[in-house]
Amino acid sequence: MMREDRLPSFDGVFAPVVYRDGGIDMVDQTALPERTVVLRLTEVAEVAEAIRTMRVRGAPAIGVTAAYGLVLGLERGEDLIRVADTLRGTRPTAVNLAWAIDRMLETFERRKDESAADLRAAMLAEARRIHAEDIAANRAIGRYGADLLPNDASVVTICNTGALATGGYGTAYGVLRAAHEAGKLAMVYPCETRPRLQGARLTAWELLRDRIPFRLIVDGAAGALMAKGKIDAVLAGADRIAANGDSANKIGTYQLAILARHHGIPFYIVAPTSTIDPDTPDGARIEIEQRSEDEVLAPYGCRFAPEGAAAWNPAFDVTPAELITGIVTERGVFRPPYRFEEGRG
Amino acid sequence: MMREDRLPSFDGVFAPVVYRDGGIDMVDQTALPERTVVLRLTEVAEVAEAIRTMRVRGAPAIGVTAAYGLVLGLERGEDLIRVADTLRGTRPTAVNLAWAIDRMLETFERRKDESAADLRAAMLAEARRIHAEDIAANRAIGRYGADLLPNDASVVTICNTGALATGGYGTAYGVLRAAHEAGKLAMVYPCETRPRLQGARLTAWELLRDRIPFRLIVDGAAGALMAKGKIDAVLAGADRIAANGDSANKIGTYQLAILARHHGIPFYIVAPTSTIDPDTPDGARIEIEQRSEDEVLAPYGCRFAPEGAAAWNPAFDVTPAELITGIVTERGVFRPPYRFEEGRG
Repeated sequence: MMREDRLPSFDGVFAPVVYRDGGIDMVDQTALPERTVVLRLTEVAEVAEAIRTMRVRGAPAIGVTAAYGLVLGLERGEDLIRVADTLRGTRPTAVNLAWAIDRMLETFERRKDESAADLRAAMLAEARRIHAEDIAANRAIGRYGADLLPNDASVVTICNTGALATGGYGTAYGVLRAAHEAGKLAMVYPCETRPRLQGARLTAWELLRDRIPFRLIVDGAAGALMAKGKIDAVLAGADRIAANGDSANKIGTYQLAILARHHGIPFYIVAPTSTIDPDTPDGARIEIEQRSEDEVLAPYGCRFAPEGAAAWNPAFDVTPAELITGIVTERGVFRPPYRFEEGRG
Repeated sequence: MMREDRLPSFDGVFAPVVYRDGGIDMVDQTALPERTVVLRLTEVAEVAEAIRTMRVRGAPAIGVTAAYGLVLGLERGEDLIRVADTLRGTRPTAVNLAWAIDRMLETFERRKDESAADLRAAMLAEARRIHAEDIAANRAIGRYGADLLPNDASVVTICNTGALATGGYGTAYGVLRAAHEAGKLAMVYPCETRPRLQGARLTAWELLRDRIPFRLIVDGAAGALMAKGKIDAVLAGADRIAANGDSANKIGTYQLAILARHHGIPFYIVAPTSTIDPDTPDGARIEIEQRSEDEVLAPYGCRFAPEGAAAWNPAFDVTPAELITGIVTERGVFRPPYRFEEGRG
């Protein structure tokens, strides 16, 4: 892994990952906000490790990364089925990962009898299509979502759903971006989002870059903030949306939905339709990734808990459909009852 | 301030603060769990600073500390009214602070015409009575609270309410201790309690010492944990309880109460009657201390948020009485509707 120091971009926007000259440029999100490090990945094993260790994270972003990972595997002459299996196993909850891999494998099947050069070109074109479609979806999502907000809106959000979490632009964050551009956003309250603090580290970094006014809160302050009566909406991303609308997202999302309901505040899940998994009937079937206890006990090398302490550390939770006011996608806003059985394609 | 290294005790239990030989021995809770440092305080200004910077914290513990602080002021020949004002201003939300100071000033008024030696002895005796009564109250609270729990109980708690937060033994933590001694406690899930992480740093430290099984959770995981259906109760302390039962406690307590209600789990406030403030009619009149943004942005010197980020950092929130299943005190368990107008004395 080589390190460079300039931000990648794609289709005119900042992107956390791009494919260039036979390798992947990737912003190392574990180094942000202190340092902006761009990694250069040229091996599939490096890509898998980068996903696993969350140098790239966010369901749409790891989907795009996996697509480029398959291009890299082909470039290296590796067995694509094994490459796909390796990448698929890195994070179990995000469906965009499996979705992007399947789409790349379909292209491979369709084009594998062509010349090596044509096949490689077709695979890279497909990965870039996935990437471009994600950004286009996010822009559409931003417009649909911003329309849901009142003027002078104050919004609570969780984790990072910005350019860093996607192909670029952002999902829930894309709505904030669009609302800000439309002049109707008064204040964002990002939950810091323990254990990995993506709200504090990544969303705050993007909000500062975009000059959007915000005040960071600890995750325990969301209820008290809502009780003050000034919050107009809660916006969250998703890692997988089941056919019935149940949505897996960063740990803490479920309780934000309960708090929003208690205070009469609309709660929106914001995600491209690639996050919808019609093969998962409901949230009970979504595998929830358990991560290292050290993320809780000693985040980023800062040990808070005493030696010998144990922790329970699920990466995600599931918000049941009945707590979700609407699901904002690039095809518009879905309202309950949600029925995504027919596919997302 | 001198530093020593052995744990203070009082009435046979570990105590975070004791008075000895004309000075105060105090466990520095900002150094835990990494280092166990016992400070030696011999000036009122040091006591005020220790409360303000949370070297001692927890409403009952700072009440006891303030009582000893007045003894120290008398010892130093200072004006007791000014000493009282100095100590009273250190933390606005905890009512035990004002309660202990008022009780010490009453003793002073009653005895001030006696000899200097008799007055000093009377004041120290009163401070030690406050201390001893707090421990006795906590033991009674522990018995009442443990009776509320089923066998094999799993409990969520927040912040630190243990020996460190009190004169000794603990309030909500005292209930855990009593339930553990009675063999009916299966598992404790302490919320880490951002921003200052008293759950991770202090409660985990006490649970390890007491060999009580626990798994630490991030504050955002409480809802997902409750959804699993294995939590029997939520126990929280209080910094001030209004006459109508509304209770101020560590930020995050209010939303735990909402989550408990949503999942049909009993939510108890656990505190001595010295925490009840009959002069505060309801929670809207409780002053909520705002603390430094850096507690959110860069806890204990670990900077997570980018430079330039802002934060909203209230130290406490107010849980309305209607979300509180019962208030466990040394006089028994109060049930709604709460009416504490008649005083707590």
